[in-house]
Amino acid sequence: MNTMTETAALQAAAGNDTPAPTFRDELIASGLLIDTGENGLYGRSQVFEDVVDRLNVAITHLGSDQDPEVLRFPPAMRRTDFEDSEYLKNFPQLAGTIHSFCGNESGQMRLLRCLDDAMEKSDDDRDTAWMEQQKPTRVVLTPAACYPIYPVMARRGPLPANGRTIDVLSYCFRHEPSLDPARMQMFRQREYVRLGNPEQVMAFRQMWIDRGSLLVSLLALPVDVDLANDPFFGRGGKIVADSQRAQALKFELLIPVANPDSKTACLSFNYHMDHFGGIWKIECEDGSTAHTGCVGFGMERITLALFRHHGLDVNAWPDDVRALLWGDTQARIQRGLAETGV
Amino acid sequence: MNTMTETAALQAAAGNDTPAPTFRDELIASGLLIDTGENGLYGRSQVFEDVVDRLNVAITHLGSDQDPEVLRFPPAMRRTDFEDSEYLKNFPQLAGTIHSFCGNESGQMRLLRCLDDAMEKSDDDRDTAWMEQQKPTRVVLTPAACYPIYPVMARRGPLPANGRTIDVLSYCFRHEPSLDPARMQMFRQREYVRLGNPEQVMAFRQMWIDRGSLLVSLLALPVDVDLANDPFFGRGGKIVADSQRAQALKFELLIPVANPDSKTACLSFNYHMDHFGGIWKIECEDGSTAHTGCVGFGMERITLALFRHHGLDVNAWPDDVRALLWGDTQARIQRGLAETGV
Repeated sequence: MNTMTETAALQAAAGNDTPAPTFRDELIASGLLIDTGENGLYGRSQVFEDVVDRLNVAITHLGSDQDPEVLRFPPAMRRTDFEDSEYLKNFPQLAGTIHSFCGNESGQMRLLRCLDDAMEKSDDDRDTAWMEQQKPTRVVLTPAACYPIYPVMARRGPLPANGRTIDVLSYCFRHEPSLDPARMQMFRQREYVRLGNPEQVMAFRQMWIDRGSLLVSLLALPVDVDLANDPFFGRGGKIVADSQRAQALKFELLIPVANPDSKTACLSFNYHMDHFGGIWKIECEDGSTAHTGCVGFGMERITLALFRHHGLDVNAWPDDVRALLWGDTQARIQRGLAETGV
Repeated sequence: MNTMTETAALQAAAGNDTPAPTFRDELIASGLLIDTGENGLYGRSQVFEDVVDRLNVAITHLGSDQDPEVLRFPPAMRRTDFEDSEYLKNFPQLAGTIHSFCGNESGQMRLLRCLDDAMEKSDDDRDTAWMEQQKPTRVVLTPAACYPIYPVMARRGPLPANGRTIDVLSYCFRHEPSLDPARMQMFRQREYVRLGNPEQVMAFRQMWIDRGSLLVSLLALPVDVDLANDPFFGRGGKIVADSQRAQALKFELLIPVANPDSKTACLSFNYHMDHFGGIWKIECEDGSTAHTGCVGFGMERITLALFRHHGLDVNAWPDDVRALLWGDTQARIQRGLAETGV
């Protein structure tokens, strides 16, 4: 690893009084991320987006033999589907609901008077009295890319014998403002989702643990897959998290990104058992409740890991990584699949 | 025009009792759009997304000689920037604010009890009592793709002598649930945005009226550019709209899409005068307040117009349209620019 972070850390250790710039500082100074003034909300440069696009192409090749159905949803879903999903039992603090003004002209005049008062204060001190007239709409921000697909699949009737594999990508929202650039409030998840019987879903998950590890090793990033749990809310959440670990439902591929003392989950491999199948009454061909699982690629996190480990200048990235992303992507992915047999 | 809509209309006129399927019905039946159960919120098939992607490539070639800076923002922006933008003076009814639960465990228990009660009712009758604890966050859904860039440009200091041209694309939200598939609640806008002196911005807008018309004629769609106004809120909104028309600030390129009796704005060409420059104190090189303007491409609307006029099977589209999108896109765009001199 030869990045500006290390250089700056060495300078700081050598007695330079200026505090070492963080990885976030460097990303913003280089123009790869654009500061919006809100933690966890960034613009992206053309170079950053190009890496995301090329990673998406690589992921498509990595899954093309699975013949997935490609579906794309906007970053919001129907509120009643979101309510049905039980997300609020587990992560009420992360969800984002969408509210709109539905009042008349005198309501708007009140709104604007409140807003005028608020705007006399500095940005950070503004109150939100003008928002008291905002009413819930029928849509909610998508918390994870696969959420919109389950009700859609349920409406199609029983699964075919081979089940289904779906390819989704969307911006997702999580309300967790953070200075860690790898913990954004709005970020893209690419997912392959498997619906079928337990054996089909378990085989899918193991295959994707292997294929995700292959991709990350082809990107010359360190591979470290570990048992994991989701950030369940509250004290009771610990019991749910322990149960999730005991049943080995979630694995993550962890890579050091912004924080030198910890690793960031860049891919996750999830077995939902019959959670979504039961809620939306998705059936297998034999009438049993469908099981589901997914592999999620954190597009911004993998991109940030590449900049962290290979430097901020994509032209100086290792030849093999450049060739994988901007050269013979398909051939290199197929060779990797053939050589490892995953 | 030889589409299923016409065929169905003829069948209906011939005395068939089954009501003619609408264009929306056909889009959903063909799988191009995926019904989510919420009006104006759709999934997109791989074919639909491929058309959007290829249109984006064509738009890139159409603007490449302008050397725009490419920036991409997530579909939300900082709330204080949104407040500053004065959007709420004009379109309070369309905005979507994002709210989250910030309570403790007993608050969550209350939330879940309310949700359990609501879920005993049918989807359409559910109440939103569980949402009473949702608090405003510091982010708001992006109402138009260019909104996030103005505060970013202001922080860079005065514009260079040539001003700036920015290329943006993002999902946008407008709270206007509708059965018209061309009026989505979440949709993508691609924009070129010009910041500079009035002459630079006016020249940019005229160029894009011409280039937008060129693109649409290369797509074998009818070109009809007209003076327009935004849907300003309330009775007072009519005065603002009249003023916008009197000053010729907004033009739209209109194409018949879903509704046989009216046309849909698929591109818009906007001159903001010093509205955004004044709010964010964006200065030209000479210290004067920057003027701004933009051309907006409604990606879903142009895509829907193609399906409406050329049929639901992309393989049966006219050869020239197929060649433009999936063939020698760059060469055809450059030839069109050279031949028309726009």
